[in-house]
Amino acid sequence: MIATLTGLNKAFESRVRLGIMSVLMVNDTADFATLKRLLDLTDGNLSSHARALEDAGYIACEKRFVGRRPNTMYRATLKGREAFKEHLAALEEFVNEQK
Amino acid sequence: MIATLTGLNKAFESRVRLGIMSVLMVNDTADFATLKRLLDLTDGNLSSHARALEDAGYIACEKRFVGRRPNTMYRATLKGREAFKEHLAALEEFVNEQK
Repeated sequence: MIATLTGLNKAFESRVRLGIMSVLMVNDTADFATLKRLLDLTDGNLSSHARALEDAGYIACEKRFVGRRPNTMYRATLKGREAFKEHLAALEEFVNEQK
Repeated sequence: MIATLTGLNKAFESRVRLGIMSVLMVNDTADFATLKRLLDLTDGNLSSHARALEDAGYIACEKRFVGRRPNTMYRATLKGREAFKEHLAALEEFVNEQK
């Protein structure tokens, strides 16, 4: 593989996952409805990508009730923050190499 | 969707496709064996991603024989070059926004 491409993290390949991580790097937490609105996603699309990031240990979620309504709150883990920063650095290196 | 993410092209999301386009931006043409070696891919993986880029009109392929051996030669189309440059610009913008 081209050197700089090996630094890219497969877990962050999709725009949706870049978007989720991006929101959670800036905000300590975001709930499902907020992520869905900010990223303009369907429930299913957000659920499956959030689950993949959770399985990788990059985000954590907490399910709770707000009144009678279930609410899922997401946050980036330390591992996720570090991995995302490395991915961004690799992306930057790759983009600069293409110039 | 976060503004800068909308500029990203879904066709270029995977590392493999970034790699194929990257090679074909620098080299006028590359054959199957060369792409496979440079990107360290299996036949199936390269075939399916190359086919997706071909279906999008971003690369073109030409099958021919070199002696008795079939050989597939790839090149980026003008449309592909333009789309890839736009994708790189969007990636750069996204990365810079995260700083």
